[in-house]
Amino acid sequence: MTTQFDQVSVITKANVYFDGKCISHTVLFADGSRKTLGVIFPSSLTFSTGAAERMELNAGTCRVRLEGETEWKTYTGGQSFDVPANAKFDIETLELLDYVCHFL
Amino acid sequence: MTTQFDQVSVITKANVYFDGKCISHTVLFADGSRKTLGVIFPSSLTFSTGAAERMELNAGTCRVRLEGETEWKTYTGGQSFDVPANAKFDIETLELLDYVCHFL
Repeated sequence: MTTQFDQVSVITKANVYFDGKCISHTVLFADGSRKTLGVIFPSSLTFSTGAAERMELNAGTCRVRLEGETEWKTYTGGQSFDVPANAKFDIETLELLDYVCHFL
Repeated sequence: MTTQFDQVSVITKANVYFDGKCISHTVLFADGSRKTLGVIFPSSLTFSTGAAERMELNAGTCRVRLEGETEWKTYTGGQSFDVPANAKFDIETLELLDYVCHFL
């Protein structure tokens, strides 16, 4: 679990999605990559990806169903899950989810 | 208005206050100073400071009453207000407030 990123840039303005159910801040790395640090409040949401991404969970628990799959999988703090590019996934959070989103 | 901080470290885990009404991420600077990037959802809250701080507003509108004052002052995106160390202030937000908190 990564607790801190060093030698990065951060965008001061928050990203607000789903009427505030998801809030994140963007981190830019020297190699041109970026990540977002965020939270998802208890909700049932459907996200769409652009780039492929890895959702690394700092805290909380969620159930996730990737597009085209029928099975829901449960992830909790310390775990992560990957989502392909240009895909959708359903996510249900029952408590505040704290995450790092790595764009792959 | 500062849109980006460069050559900083960020803490990946969010700070959650007031049952999620206030969410922030901590940014650490090479000189040892720190700031937080955050949002406050519509609410009426009372914050307590440790260090003195400057609240710089990226977006949104709030009414603020510093401890010991009777007057409420209104601040909006592009403005900022200062709070002394070891003080309290009441803040009312009617729409999502996006801020940078500078610890002075």
